Amino acid sequence: MATGRLVEVYLDLLSQPCRAVHILLNCTKIPHRVRTVALRKGEHRTPDFTKLNPMQKVPVMVDDGFVLTESDAILKYLATKYHVPEHWYPRQPERRARVDEYTAWHHTNTRPHAAKVFILEVLLPGHSGSPVDEVRLNRALSELNDTLDKLESMFLRRQPFLCGDEITLADLLAVCELMQPLGGGRDVLTERPQLQQWRSRVQSAVGESFDKAHAVLYAVRDRRRARL
Amino acid sequence: MATGRLVEVYLDLLSQPCRAVHILLNCTKIPHRVRTVALRKGEHRTPDFTKLNPMQKVPVMVDDGFVLTESDAILKYLATKYHVPEHWYPRQPERRARVDEYTAWHHTNTRPHAAKVFILEVLLPGHSGSPVDEVRLNRALSELNDTLDKLESMFLRRQPFLCGDEITLADLLAVCELMQPLGGGRDVLTERPQLQQWRSRVQSAVGESFDKAHAVLYAVRDRRRARL
Repeated sequence: MATGRLVEVYLDLLSQPCRAVHILLNCTKIPHRVRTVALRKGEHRTPDFTKLNPMQKVPVMVDDGFVLTESDAILKYLATKYHVPEHWYPRQPERRARVDEYTAWHHTNTRPHAAKVFILEVLLPGHSGSPVDEVRLNRALSELNDTLDKLESMFLRRQPFLCGDEITLADLLAVCELMQPLGGGRDVLTERPQLQQWRSRVQSAVGESFDKAHAVLYAVRDRRRARL
Repeated sequence: MATGRLVEVYLDLLSQPCRAVHILLNCTKIPHRVRTVALRKGEHRTPDFTKLNPMQKVPVMVDDGFVLTESDAILKYLATKYHVPEHWYPRQPERRARVDEYTAWHHTNTRPHAAKVFILEVLLPGHSGSPVDEVRLNRALSELNDTLDKLESMFLRRQPFLCGDEITLADLLAVCELMQPLGGGRDVLTERPQLQQWRSRVQSAVGESFDKAHAVLYAVRDRRRARL
């Protein structure tokens, strides 16, 4: 069956790691099919989805019966299995180690700190109807600032992408997190020319797959804007 | 120079990820030299160490001038570069993806949840002289229990090691975290026969390098015990 040749991915494009997977699949033209799992409708808690991923999280990838969770692992698997251009996840041990180094750091830095801003500005007020908790928001913004400082002074010091001269999986994971607060109308890179230029380089490198993955986030931002 | 052939690692064996690196180096017999960085003496904040790793964290690996941080990345680099037995970090994409899947999950589950118990029972009371905060401790233990449930019901379901039939890097990262509360006299696996058996399998697989890496933690436990 032709469908047996397609990688299936279960995604909600409002989820940052899902967008990273979506961008890689599209810009490297890996034949795939997207199954949408709407988190806000609780579709990740249905019996069928729970059977697929007992952790009840997206993204999930199914490749010829092989079920894989965790965006970090999915991106690395896809890059390896589908022979995408070498630069995405270099084979040379030192260059690969740089990508693994960033992705390990990402889980406890870029990801939670950018996500928290979105949660406090968009998700929590949306659920509860209460105003934004400014004290917690300021704390989250300060933690995010510390992460942005490190991205600039360590990862982007003397190189155009996070792990070297060319775009890697690390840039996708990072950019999708840093875009998230835009859903609440906040561009966290406004006063960060170095990171802005990096984001532009990432956008150029992945072409239209960037906006395609972010269309749902842009719609969230625009709906909020219209309400103000 | 002969020393140019040694991998150098900067470690504090009271740090869980440092022990994972230490065990891999010892049990695969990679020629290396350990440089101790005593966190409790603030040696990770000295100008020299900060120059080596501006993040001021251990472990750090230096291999012929190549400086690498993040235990996850260091373990994968060592396994690749030093051709350790295949099972540690399998080349076959699906098997490797299982290791990457666990390590990604590890950063926001096993690691923070086991570490928090040690922080609340040992580090904070040690610094402040105050008694253990029982409310926070119970919350931490409950979060850790949830992680232990998942380790049993998902990762160890139907297989002896976290990622398959043989030991991988994932088991080292996990076991070193789960050992940490032992420094405060608490074995978090006491009522977990499935995880206890897994821990025994890991110990058997790595031999004496297990106790060698944990000697400092055992000493912390024994000193506390003697004081009671």
